[in-house]
Amino acid sequence: MTGMLASYVADQWWIPADDTDAAVVRDASTGEVVTRVSTRGIDLAGALEHARTVGQRSLGELTFHQRAVLLKQFAMALTERKEELYELSKRAGSTVRDSLSDVDGGIGVLFTYSSKGRRELPNSRVYVDGSPEPLSKDGSFLGQHVYTRLPGVALQINAFNFPMWGALEKFAPAFLAGVPTVVKPATPSAYIAEAWVRILVESGLLPDGSLQLVSGALPGVFELLRLGDLVAFTGSASTAERLRAQTPEGVRFTTETDSINASVLGPDATPGTPEFDAYVGQLMVELTTKAGQKCTAIRRAIVPSGTAQALVDAIGEKIARRIVIGDPHADGVTMGPLVSTQQRDEVLARVAELEDAGGRILLGSTTAPDVVHPDGSTGPAPEGAFMAPLLVGFDDARVGAVHDVEAFGPVASVLTYDTLEEAADLVGRGGGSLVTSVATHDTDVAVELLSRIGAYNGRVLFLSRENARTSTGHGAPVPHLVHGGPGRAGGGEELGGIRAVLHHMQRTAIQGSPDMLTAITGVWHQGAASVDEGTHPFRKSLAELRIGDQVRSADREVSLDDIETFARFTGDTFYAHMDEDAASANPFFPGRVAHGYLLVSWAAGLFVDPAPGPVLANYGLENLRFVTPVSPGDRIRVTLTAKQITPRETDEYGEVRWDAVIHNQRDEIVAQYDVLTLVAKDAAAPAPSGSLASAVPA
Amino acid sequence: MTGMLASYVADQWWIPADDTDAAVVRDASTGEVVTRVSTRGIDLAGALEHARTVGQRSLGELTFHQRAVLLKQFAMALTERKEELYELSKRAGSTVRDSLSDVDGGIGVLFTYSSKGRRELPNSRVYVDGSPEPLSKDGSFLGQHVYTRLPGVALQINAFNFPMWGALEKFAPAFLAGVPTVVKPATPSAYIAEAWVRILVESGLLPDGSLQLVSGALPGVFELLRLGDLVAFTGSASTAERLRAQTPEGVRFTTETDSINASVLGPDATPGTPEFDAYVGQLMVELTTKAGQKCTAIRRAIVPSGTAQALVDAIGEKIARRIVIGDPHADGVTMGPLVSTQQRDEVLARVAELEDAGGRILLGSTTAPDVVHPDGSTGPAPEGAFMAPLLVGFDDARVGAVHDVEAFGPVASVLTYDTLEEAADLVGRGGGSLVTSVATHDTDVAVELLSRIGAYNGRVLFLSRENARTSTGHGAPVPHLVHGGPGRAGGGEELGGIRAVLHHMQRTAIQGSPDMLTAITGVWHQGAASVDEGTHPFRKSLAELRIGDQVRSADREVSLDDIETFARFTGDTFYAHMDEDAASANPFFPGRVAHGYLLVSWAAGLFVDPAPGPVLANYGLENLRFVTPVSPGDRIRVTLTAKQITPRETDEYGEVRWDAVIHNQRDEIVAQYDVLTLVAKDAAAPAPSGSLASAVPA
Repeated sequence: MTGMLASYVADQWWIPADDTDAAVVRDASTGEVVTRVSTRGIDLAGALEHARTVGQRSLGELTFHQRAVLLKQFAMALTERKEELYELSKRAGSTVRDSLSDVDGGIGVLFTYSSKGRRELPNSRVYVDGSPEPLSKDGSFLGQHVYTRLPGVALQINAFNFPMWGALEKFAPAFLAGVPTVVKPATPSAYIAEAWVRILVESGLLPDGSLQLVSGALPGVFELLRLGDLVAFTGSASTAERLRAQTPEGVRFTTETDSINASVLGPDATPGTPEFDAYVGQLMVELTTKAGQKCTAIRRAIVPSGTAQALVDAIGEKIARRIVIGDPHADGVTMGPLVSTQQRDEVLARVAELEDAGGRILLGSTTAPDVVHPDGSTGPAPEGAFMAPLLVGFDDARVGAVHDVEAFGPVASVLTYDTLEEAADLVGRGGGSLVTSVATHDTDVAVELLSRIGAYNGRVLFLSRENARTSTGHGAPVPHLVHGGPGRAGGGEELGGIRAVLHHMQRTAIQGSPDMLTAITGVWHQGAASVDEGTHPFRKSLAELRIGDQVRSADREVSLDDIETFARFTGDTFYAHMDEDAASANPFFPGRVAHGYLLVSWAAGLFVDPAPGPVLANYGLENLRFVTPVSPGDRIRVTLTAKQITPRETDEYGEVRWDAVIHNQRDEIVAQYDVLTLVAKDAAAPAPSGSLASAVPA
Repeated sequence: MTGMLASYVADQWWIPADDTDAAVVRDASTGEVVTRVSTRGIDLAGALEHARTVGQRSLGELTFHQRAVLLKQFAMALTERKEELYELSKRAGSTVRDSLSDVDGGIGVLFTYSSKGRRELPNSRVYVDGSPEPLSKDGSFLGQHVYTRLPGVALQINAFNFPMWGALEKFAPAFLAGVPTVVKPATPSAYIAEAWVRILVESGLLPDGSLQLVSGALPGVFELLRLGDLVAFTGSASTAERLRAQTPEGVRFTTETDSINASVLGPDATPGTPEFDAYVGQLMVELTTKAGQKCTAIRRAIVPSGTAQALVDAIGEKIARRIVIGDPHADGVTMGPLVSTQQRDEVLARVAELEDAGGRILLGSTTAPDVVHPDGSTGPAPEGAFMAPLLVGFDDARVGAVHDVEAFGPVASVLTYDTLEEAADLVGRGGGSLVTSVATHDTDVAVELLSRIGAYNGRVLFLSRENARTSTGHGAPVPHLVHGGPGRAGGGEELGGIRAVLHHMQRTAIQGSPDMLTAITGVWHQGAASVDEGTHPFRKSLAELRIGDQVRSADREVSLDDIETFARFTGDTFYAHMDEDAASANPFFPGRVAHGYLLVSWAAGLFVDPAPGPVLANYGLENLRFVTPVSPGDRIRVTLTAKQITPRETDEYGEVRWDAVIHNQRDEIVAQYDVLTLVAKDAAAPAPSGSLASAVPA
């Protein structure tokens, strides 16, 4: 382990020939050498080209769902060996609690993207964005937005604090989009990235070229990038600016940079309220998890005037009771060292800056603390990067440094406000943040604050008694929601479910005939060719059914007696169906009209093929619109067309969406909607397999 | 008119004190002085601050729908006076046909955004993006993405070719978002921008500070921008790069730059086919409209080997028959001059570069053509910026200049290909384009090409016999679809309906309890407080109804007889309802189950309040999911809760979306969906007002 750290390039492990210029990486608690890192002699151009050719090809052969299934398998392979990753992470200063965010958090991203990929993406390669736009009156010319994948490589440049989560949260959406990734970890924790990459390589699951790892520096890499490539950078704002300037035209460059995140204690959340307690608990967690080395950590506690001392006291009491600083290998340690002594010194320098700007240390001390060692003894750790949690107070909450200087460790400032407008102004002075949290039980406070701080934040968390226990926390990005913020936070967006997948694809507006749009999207468009070849489409399995397969029903006349029968049967005696005079007075009805529910029920009676067959269930309807009322004596008919076919990768059935249109005898559209069904892959129905609820997609 | 051109700043017209350093703007056909342009002494910082304060305040008082109504009124004010704008545009070289894209096109953008704003945005100030994300098992902690407007000013820097459309296509989405605009037109056509701004000012409709005009240069403006502001630039790639580098952190900067757009003639579109004819017609239009001065114009005609001569002949014939070059003031002129002699010289210099790179002029000549003068005579126009359409051929289609040098005038290159892969490769060599068009009737060609060129284009138009007449054309961005492309095209996206509105807003992930999310979004979330105060919510007008108003129905038992009655009545005798053995063999049903349509029909019977009242019609359903089958003997009940209320600005009613949940006797969810209704604003129903079809939103 004290040798050279490997890279994984072009589907091969690679180690530099010698250790000239290698960076030495040390254990954060003991200073022992863990590994040496160098990329001297590595073929970066070859790695990028391998991704663009082999990686693009192997991922391009898979559909969204097939890639999603692989993500789950990756997650399971990593889960099996996560103890190894916990152990290794301790050397970088992470307690097992810290590893919950990095190791389990990273695995969780893979699971979530696997699930969302299968629920929210089609089982194909083109993503349809929004509704078709009619561009001609006769329906011969339509517009539709689609996303196709970018043809390049996703280069990720990561920060040291989350060597696993920080890479996987970028990898999962890129992989799902079909874009190969090159991971560049930060040197101080590169050996943890190497470990999880090795587990995935050893699993044998990785498509060729889909994942590469460059352990160490990337000299000149920006000159090798081109249109269709992406860079995702996590780290400091200054490095981000430098790299952005080097990025060639057409290369998507996004950054997620540390920001001076705020946490506001609402005016209603006075000491003694559940919100005050929740605020204190959250601030304690944010100060101490990963020793405060989180880009989302709370740097500014913004509290009502007069509450500062109560807050400091409560935090002090909580830290004394809960926090044990030491080597993560020791039992009972709840807060580890910073990642390196250089990083610790950097943080102390920033604290000095805050003090120079008028900051007073309200809690803690900059003196190196005594810590718990693996043998259970307590004492100094001269080679360790330990630091105690600090709260810094300011008389003038508007002083520039407090909104600008980031001490990337267990450090937060305490600022006070008198009015909500002032609190919002303080939040905005951060110049754009990843996240702000607000502890309040007052929805008026929430609405007022959000209208003022929304535009300055990528995420805003409202903490209240309802979710004090269930909240995922201020500092924890979740894969379902965007992670990133405006201004100082880098202006990027990561995660957010499918949003991050689409970031790896190009949105293109397609214009053409219904047939062209149907062929390109795999979704039948009104006006495209349809086929009625005699066999009812309900008799076709997924293997046989084709987009455009259609059944047109016979006519059926709706009588007043039918309307009254339906009203009696359902209990729906709404006046528009039952009272001629009242119905005529309604602005939209010519007189008594049929129930909309009667029409869709009859439509089903008209299009259904009743005998057992591949169609297993109608699990829903979407976008139903009643557009022309049906009066007694009108005749209706329905046309049902196979619109979209989504086979499931891991079930014996899939989803079929049908376009349904009900016309009247004047060929006016009465109603239109999508009918959602589950259909067997083969002609024989699959064996009983459990609940409808678990089979029905959202 | 030969005086100084006015700016409109801080709701006042402003003219520089003197003409020192003023730029002289000349008539494109005659060289006469039209106006002088200068911003010497203008208070730019004051203009920006006026937008950020007064403009933000006045727009912030309006909802999306109120802003949308104003957009329509702006469009009507401009329509009334569009003849003035046509006349003025002639001086910049635009024929009336050219003005259809600039003047009518600009007005059309306002109409479209007015309509889309009211159909696709809520009648409030916060936009909800996507579905709520459950983040805790007990439902106490949810996530939801929302957009709130940016707190700054939208600065637009426009190109000379579309002084009206180019500004209004940026203004409309900014205005709808609630962000004030500062328009900076290009000097050669700044007097046309002044004219339409003057019409809007004179209409008295503009909210204070919502629109300002700076006629002339913007020295030092980038230093005045800050987080929350936006810049939208249209023009050359080199200027875009320079401005991007000056843009402060946190300021959104988007560019839409000229690109070397391609038009591909499909291998099936041989001479004699309708697609060949459509291709020729389109290329002729793109060469000559606005004298080829369009960022979307076709610069590269990519045609099958052996077809080049047939194409050149056909274009030559069409130009001879249709194109009359001259002063747009003259009758019968179909192609005007370029905007200025400088611009004409610039284009000729680029043509010379293309020739140096091996280009041969296949059609037309670089010699200044004789033109038609306003008096009907034909002859030279030494002070006019006239130029004949040119086609340039290349033996080697891969030569760099053809994909890189832009002659921004009536000039296109003709390139040949042998395989689709080659054609796609040529398209990609443009380095990213606003648009590529493809003439083909073969869906396989379309699918294959799109998979290869999608990522290089913001828009792809498929031209075929079905839409040869109805197509809006290669060069015409439509407000419904995104305008912008990757790489050389600037990497931005404009238009695209609501997408461009959201560009002026910040997406923020909100986390909190259902009550918090309900208060912030104005949309009721499952688990939020509900109110059942005795009055049935169907008895409440829009003025009385509140989000969360709820009715819980009684139970009703479903018997086998009910199922059979319903089957007989509807004709829906699907085996899952009628045949115990077959139903039991289905993987999702325990035996015979009730029809889904029976359940929603009964639910309506359970929740409806039948007497006439404010609820006028149920016009649709959305997101219906059947999740638990209902067996004979089960009892169902329904809970209906007011979820979203959208009053219409210009009707006596609005839309109410209701959350509907059907439970069984075990409190399992049987089905859930949204019920869509039209509800009167006042207790008295409005007078009859026409068809349901026109009242129902998409």
